[in-house]
Amino acid sequence: MVKQKIGIIKIGGAFLEDEKLLETFYSAFASMEGLKVLVHGGGKRASKLSIDLGITPQMVHGRRITDAKSLEVVTMVYAGWANKTLVAGLQGRGCNALGLSGADANLIRALKRPASDIDYGLVGDVERVDADGLSTLLNAGFTPVFCALTHDGRGQLLNTNADSIAADLAMGLSPLYEVKLVYCFEKQGVLRDVSDPESVIPRIDPDHFKTLQKEGAISEGMIPKLFNSFRALQAGVDQVYIGPVSLLSGQAPKSTQIHL
Amino acid sequence: MVKQKIGIIKIGGAFLEDEKLLETFYSAFASMEGLKVLVHGGGKRASKLSIDLGITPQMVHGRRITDAKSLEVVTMVYAGWANKTLVAGLQGRGCNALGLSGADANLIRALKRPASDIDYGLVGDVERVDADGLSTLLNAGFTPVFCALTHDGRGQLLNTNADSIAADLAMGLSPLYEVKLVYCFEKQGVLRDVSDPESVIPRIDPDHFKTLQKEGAISEGMIPKLFNSFRALQAGVDQVYIGPVSLLSGQAPKSTQIHL
Repeated sequence: MVKQKIGIIKIGGAFLEDEKLLETFYSAFASMEGLKVLVHGGGKRASKLSIDLGITPQMVHGRRITDAKSLEVVTMVYAGWANKTLVAGLQGRGCNALGLSGADANLIRALKRPASDIDYGLVGDVERVDADGLSTLLNAGFTPVFCALTHDGRGQLLNTNADSIAADLAMGLSPLYEVKLVYCFEKQGVLRDVSDPESVIPRIDPDHFKTLQKEGAISEGMIPKLFNSFRALQAGVDQVYIGPVSLLSGQAPKSTQIHL
Repeated sequence: MVKQKIGIIKIGGAFLEDEKLLETFYSAFASMEGLKVLVHGGGKRASKLSIDLGITPQMVHGRRITDAKSLEVVTMVYAGWANKTLVAGLQGRGCNALGLSGADANLIRALKRPASDIDYGLVGDVERVDADGLSTLLNAGFTPVFCALTHDGRGQLLNTNADSIAADLAMGLSPLYEVKLVYCFEKQGVLRDVSDPESVIPRIDPDHFKTLQKEGAISEGMIPKLFNSFRALQAGVDQVYIGPVSLLSGQAPKSTQIHL
């Protein structure tokens, strides 16, 4: 049986803070044909709200230490402000968006990360994606829009990295669909030289990645995206790209494709 | 054709601020048999967050004047914190909850209330409920959990009273289902004397309501609930109750039934 194609698109919270970028994204995503799922972040706004409320954000290796108060903040920002802004924006452009956290319809269950030398608090690592439940929503004509929250199935919400959620959704759907995972950001792709927007690396495989890492050519924020990309490909995801939103409409002059 | 039964249950935000009340609600709602939809508020927490952020909440006749900043606040509180807390809590009790705003899947479209002597700002009055879309979700086994937000279909979220949303959902579903609408709160029902929890009025019809209003026996917060109840019954909703959560499991010793 020929599998249906699906695109899993991840955007960073930066898109929500820049009207022009957001407009470009809306057009590109709404005009994308076929099945699609959106995953979004919102970390910058969460840190801003934390500070406004007198809570100092604590980050380790780019990950938020999430105590009960910080979980309230990210829940408000990710599932509230960011998710509903995107859903209403996409609806206004004819895309039948349906906003979700992993708790909704029990679509993404996670395990609270055990405390080791670092205790991340209420942070979860994805345990199970309900691909059948997600298929039900896709078949009904909805476009799922996921924020970066999951749950443990016993009443506890968990903060979960949006890049990881995108990879886990791609992996979970790959037995049923031909999956393309796209990490969209403000740049044209992974850059060899961050100060040169033209230095896009067209193709990265694990060996190349090791070399680039040794050279210090990969920015710290890009490393988890690349690990997630390799993880997704190893689990059967068909294609992974890192690049601009123009990728969604097939009009990107440049982008980075990740290979095994 | 015999219509399937459905319960539309509305709870106030006060349930979310009281662990014991919330626990009682979870048990009652999760054990309710048949199709059900939850609608929740969150106004107290929204006012608290506003104040914490240096925004003074402005209320007229119990309704929030919603400027752009206040809309961000209610979106964070209603669709974020309140909605996802309830969804995760219900999931932990075996209820397959799916959190929604009216923008999600375009389920509730509203019209921005025109400014007259009062300009409520980004506040919407329900224009259309997509009963078929909602049926799709119900038939798939999900329990919709609505927060008090709608959209205008052109990209704008709108703050919408939760009591009204519950009535509009009940009305929208009544051609397809036998609908029971229940306004749950901390008391046993509509009280003749607010200081006497035993003074529950078992039955109110429009004439009785007028008399009670003249006598000043109805609290100001209860009046819109009663107007919404009459509106729902006139539009074909089968039953409307105001009372405690024990109503959901059929174990309330007292409650108020609204009649035409």
